Amino acid sequence: MLAVFLDSGQLSMREMDAPQRPPHHAMIRLCVAGICNTDLELQRGYYGFCGVPGHEFVGQVIETETQSLVGKRVVGEINLACGECSFCEVGLGRHCEARTVLGIVKHPGAFAEFLTLPECNLRVVPDHVTDEQAVFVEPLAAACEILEQVPLPRGSEVAVLGDGKLGLLIVKVLIAHGVDVTLIGRHANKLKIAEHAGAKIRESGNALAERFPFVVDSTGSAQGLRQAVEMVRPRGTIIMKSTVHNEVSLDMAPVIVNEITLVGSRCGRFEPALDLLSAGKVRVDDMVSAEFPLSEAPAAFAEASRRGVLKVLLRNNQTS
Amino acid sequence: MLAVFLDSGQLSMREMDAPQRPPHHAMIRLCVAGICNTDLELQRGYYGFCGVPGHEFVGQVIETETQSLVGKRVVGEINLACGECSFCEVGLGRHCEARTVLGIVKHPGAFAEFLTLPECNLRVVPDHVTDEQAVFVEPLAAACEILEQVPLPRGSEVAVLGDGKLGLLIVKVLIAHGVDVTLIGRHANKLKIAEHAGAKIRESGNALAERFPFVVDSTGSAQGLRQAVEMVRPRGTIIMKSTVHNEVSLDMAPVIVNEITLVGSRCGRFEPALDLLSAGKVRVDDMVSAEFPLSEAPAAFAEASRRGVLKVLLRNNQTS
Repeated sequence: MLAVFLDSGQLSMREMDAPQRPPHHAMIRLCVAGICNTDLELQRGYYGFCGVPGHEFVGQVIETETQSLVGKRVVGEINLACGECSFCEVGLGRHCEARTVLGIVKHPGAFAEFLTLPECNLRVVPDHVTDEQAVFVEPLAAACEILEQVPLPRGSEVAVLGDGKLGLLIVKVLIAHGVDVTLIGRHANKLKIAEHAGAKIRESGNALAERFPFVVDSTGSAQGLRQAVEMVRPRGTIIMKSTVHNEVSLDMAPVIVNEITLVGSRCGRFEPALDLLSAGKVRVDDMVSAEFPLSEAPAAFAEASRRGVLKVLLRNNQTS
Repeated sequence: MLAVFLDSGQLSMREMDAPQRPPHHAMIRLCVAGICNTDLELQRGYYGFCGVPGHEFVGQVIETETQSLVGKRVVGEINLACGECSFCEVGLGRHCEARTVLGIVKHPGAFAEFLTLPECNLRVVPDHVTDEQAVFVEPLAAACEILEQVPLPRGSEVAVLGDGKLGLLIVKVLIAHGVDVTLIGRHANKLKIAEHAGAKIRESGNALAERFPFVVDSTGSAQGLRQAVEMVRPRGTIIMKSTVHNEVSLDMAPVIVNEITLVGSRCGRFEPALDLLSAGKVRVDDMVSAEFPLSEAPAAFAEASRRGVLKVLLRNNQTS
């Protein structure tokens, strides 16, 4: 099969064997995959990744044990959990310490004609949700995770820092939830998407007089977290949505004196995200910047790395 | 009146005028005051403090508008709030942005024969609670604040890092609340107090195999917070109980990947603390290292600064 291969930060196309299908796993033919900032970080050499990347996908089940799944269009939870530990027992396989992660940790990813995932990771995509929408379920679930971790009363004022792909999805999820969102960002085209979705917008760099009870940092930078601490009200909550590499130097005194809560937030359950797309409560069509055939993944990665570009998709045109 | 005066880190005894009593304030004669780490920090020059320090006290009301208060033994909330802002409206005067703070921010403190506080800040001390117990209400309230911010199910496993005065009070409060406490500390005498109160104890420096759903950092050091991040379970909560001066350099990646919650925690309401002392559910008698007359405050500060020393008290022997 054709697959994207990443080794020591070098991206290439390869012809390789399709993955073996372990018991209780489904063999899935890729329809469409999305390039995420994490993929770009893998390319830059974080995590010492070597293998097939890719974890945002929609595909078709072509072989599995549960016959009713065969032929179905599916998305898939990216964490492959042990199913037996204390985290798995309470439905938090995303934190299973023995987990592998699709296209990130020890499980071949979705930027290939075929991939495998446990049946229990799959969610069937309703017919009226397109491939180009369904491919957003994974990052949208990460945005929805905020609402699972922090109860945000409807009508509450939330500032979102950072107008990248995740920041915009967070804006859309929060607006669908009924909160009053202000997005602080740098890119006119992205701010416009947020404004169209119903958010107030501010260009970053302009000092803000008001302080917010909730601030989401999705800047991906240490500076974002420091800015969040300045912007949050006493007793307020900062949701840390972007993995910052390297140590962050932070003045903890205002965090303690003002009794701020900082909440680390990562992946989320797929169901709420799929529900939002299925019900048309979140639109993602304005988030696609470009689509490339899988065979042109290196060019797609280059495009995804350009400043201001939003989601870049890879389509599998192979019918083997 | 006799008062402790601190100017540019220089501590001295002074004869000065008693403070003016503003409307709705009570004039209080000091009985006993306690020296807190914050006082030692003021002495070291933090906050550029100049004036009368002291915020842990029990005293007697000698003059005020509400006649039923006169003669009563009282402790007092240290934050003097505006009473009108959005924080004050919901009972969070501790976060009022216009607040002054007894002996810390723009309000003369309790290391003096007389002090003033608004009547609404005062709590009457039951007769069976001694001065030496009541003087712990303020730091005990800070320990109780944890339970107001973070719901800790009875029986849950909590690690407390740091066996200083606040760390030990936190241990006692958590044990009274019915949680399973492990204290990690450096001082044999302090660990013994915690063990006597019912905590498991560990000498710091020994690697811990287990991870905890809740970790309280009361070390007062940046290293404590880093250790807390290593010790907490995925989806766990770290309560930051010690004000660290200077920036803290912290690797936020595990905080985000493991979805850790960090909660800054400072002062608390006095009622739960007074209730614990009154009901005998928390004993503080083993926490007093020494008592000095107010007139010997400089010697008392020196004693309080020695390694391993717990609470040092100042008694007002003046009857003027």
